[in-house]
Amino acid sequence: MSVSVTTFREAGMGKNRLEAFSDGVLAIIITIMVLEMKVPHGDTLQALRPLLPVFLSYVLSFVYLGIYWNNHHHMLHTAEKVGGAVLWANLHLLFWLSLVPFVTGWMGENHFTAAPTALYGVVLLMAAVSYFVLQHAIIAAQGQDSVLKAAIGSDWKGKLSVVAYAMAIPASFWSPAIGWAIYVLVALLWLVPDRRIERVLGNQVVP
Amino acid sequence: MSVSVTTFREAGMGKNRLEAFSDGVLAIIITIMVLEMKVPHGDTLQALRPLLPVFLSYVLSFVYLGIYWNNHHHMLHTAEKVGGAVLWANLHLLFWLSLVPFVTGWMGENHFTAAPTALYGVVLLMAAVSYFVLQHAIIAAQGQDSVLKAAIGSDWKGKLSVVAYAMAIPASFWSPAIGWAIYVLVALLWLVPDRRIERVLGNQVVP
Amino acid sequence: MSVSVTTFREAGMGKNRLEAFSDGVLAIIITIMVLEMKVPHGDTLQALRPLLPVFLSYVLSFVYLGIYWNNHHHMLHTAEKVGGAVLWANLHLLFWLSLVPFVTGWMGENHFTAAPTALYGVVLLMAAVSYFVLQHAIIAAQGQDSVLKAAIGSDWKGKLSVVAYAMAIPASFWSPAIGWAIYVLVALLWLVPDRRIERVLGNQVVP
Amino acid sequence: MSVSVTTFREAGMGKNRLEAFSDGVLAIIITIMVLEMKVPHGDTLQALRPLLPVFLSYVLSFVYLGIYWNNHHHMLHTAEKVGGAVLWANLHLLFWLSLVPFVTGWMGENHFTAAPTALYGVVLLMAAVSYFVLQHAIIAAQGQDSVLKAAIGSDWKGKLSVVAYAMAIPASFWSPAIGWAIYVLVALLWLVPDRRIERVLGNQVVP
Repeated sequence: MSVSVTTFREAGMGKNRLEAFSDGVLAIIITIMVLEMKVPHGDTLQALRPLLPVFLSYVLSFVYLGIYWNNHHHMLHTAEKVGGAVLWANLHLLFWLSLVPFVTGWMGENHFTAAPTALYGVVLLMAAVSYFVLQHAIIAAQGQDSVLKAAIGSDWKGKLSVVAYAMAIPASFWSPAIGWAIYVLVALLWLVPDRRIERVLGNQVVP
Repeated sequence: MSVSVTTFREAGMGKNRLEAFSDGVLAIIITIMVLEMKVPHGDTLQALRPLLPVFLSYVLSFVYLGIYWNNHHHMLHTAEKVGGAVLWANLHLLFWLSLVPFVTGWMGENHFTAAPTALYGVVLLMAAVSYFVLQHAIIAAQGQDSVLKAAIGSDWKGKLSVVAYAMAIPASFWSPAIGWAIYVLVALLWLVPDRRIERVLGNQVVP
Repeated sequence: MSVSVTTFREAGMGKNRLEAFSDGVLAIIITIMVLEMKVPHGDTLQALRPLLPVFLSYVLSFVYLGIYWNNHHHMLHTAEKVGGAVLWANLHLLFWLSLVPFVTGWMGENHFTAAPTALYGVVLLMAAVSYFVLQHAIIAAQGQDSVLKAAIGSDWKGKLSVVAYAMAIPASFWSPAIGWAIYVLVALLWLVPDRRIERVLGNQVVP
Repeated sequence: MSVSVTTFREAGMGKNRLEAFSDGVLAIIITIMVLEMKVPHGDTLQALRPLLPVFLSYVLSFVYLGIYWNNHHHMLHTAEKVGGAVLWANLHLLFWLSLVPFVTGWMGENHFTAAPTALYGVVLLMAAVSYFVLQHAIIAAQGQDSVLKAAIGSDWKGKLSVVAYAMAIPASFWSPAIGWAIYVLVALLWLVPDRRIERVLGNQVVP
């Protein structure tokens, strides 16, 4: 019994702190974005109109960060061992996500024009790539019979997202509307939580 | 025994991370609101006078966020299983609560005029509705013998709040004072913690 | 055994989340204070000189928030049961502490003049009073043989602090220097961690 | 058995909260730095050019804070007992790290000129020294057979970093480029996670 508690503690400690730190960073990123919506000077509903594009870009980024938190949550749940490579791959992902408030503000304040829309795609692309890297670092740390490896399978969603972002970046310079459409469609694709992992875990109660 | 610890870990993990993330977001929301109180330039007590409405709206929003944290805490305590639907319903609630600092600042800086007071009600209404959705998602995840379902009973407080907010929004355009009065009264109604859940849990020591 | 794990989980859950939320709020308060130190425009060391009073007030507030976190940590450690009264008493304490960045910025930017120095004392006084209220709520929740009640004893430090703050507020209008001197002395008094609780807990390893 | 769970809870509680608070503060510091990158007014890629030095200084500070979080994580993992001295030594480290966003912003906005580059080194130096102090406080709390003491060995990396920072500060006034080169080299030196501790812990699964 004493062994069992010890194992629980040692196996869980590193992972718990990784999750706690990631939760903290994601919670702050998702919340400081709202600071970009500056309180308007007038007190009429018309005074809010210029904030509409900022609000819409906030909604889109909130959904994206929610998707990352959700999938990160599922992915880490399958991990039993985390080491230095996983810690740094995780920080790398958080770095790109920390740039989301900046590109969200730039896109919203410029009413979704070309360059800001393209840069938004660059940050989404880098975040998606760093998510891949993290996924592989976790699988490498778990060894042969990784639950995560079985769960992600062909990972078509992840691959399709990267291709979509890579297309949205040049397309935004031609017509920003194509860029936004792609970002919204990819977000909708991911709004369905990662059932792949839930399916493999089978009758376990965990999300 | 080993089974017991495993069950604890798997059942609790997802919920713990959901709670930790929610705590993080709520802690940030409740704290960044204070940034709306800009340090005044003068160094006399008179220099603070223009900040009084901002301070009062801060107090009201602090109490509302405290109520949400408190009730969220009680509600999640009854949950044993959380899945994708609960995670997204929770993010939906956090989205509306994340708009509280914005509407608090707008209402405070405009000295509680009509449109800002009404918009404050819109955000409270949407937060209350999303709390309902979260409650039902948790009950659905627990199955037939949900503790939460038994605990909330008719949920008259939740239903009354939604009706009150829906009345306060148009009333604020007629007279903002009616809007504020309703928000304060609903807050007082909820300041009593959710005894319904404590009663059902009976002699358990949990809050 | 199964009972034992269940008890651990139920007794600890509420308290853990109370601690996590408090840690989050205190971590944010202590960190956003540094945002009051605006990056100066010049790039010489002389450009930093106007920031010195802001920096000094930041150091003082950092120490005070550190003291509160530290004592809060010790106090909650002794608690085994938390209920609605404790949750709200804790939020009340966090409310007053959330005003620390505002009064710190006001005092620092006005180079420690009378009214800002007095208001700083008002916030410290209210925080100290709300800490008392929280302490009594926790003791009331534990029942007769409360470890905390035995640990705090006469609580001379807490009582002396309240008297000192109450004296510093009017004294600041006469001479702000007396106000600062009192705040620094009280901080030094508390820098020694709450050995009273460590002593009563005896040979336990906890801090 | 009941004893075992009790011990787990008492030994772990203080440490867990210390880690949670540190994670919170580090997560906020690492995230609010991005607020220094103000959204530019133009919507062209050229409008981003003035932000490049701010971005580069953000990357450097993100890496440094990642290193501190990573090493802090390893170091605390080895600790079994934490007391008042460890709590305050930890707050002292967090104080110096909380100044990183300020010096990062000052260095970035002034395009890496002499005084800001030197002050950046002062904050890194003080953080390194306070990390030493924390390390010794933890070793002192563990007693003779400290895992951490065996793990750090001669601690050549820590000592070399302090010497490097101490050299970078005066060198920055002569040529800021030498300062930046030293900060980048020391960061690269630490990017390798603290294998010393992992090696001593041997076949344990912890990071």
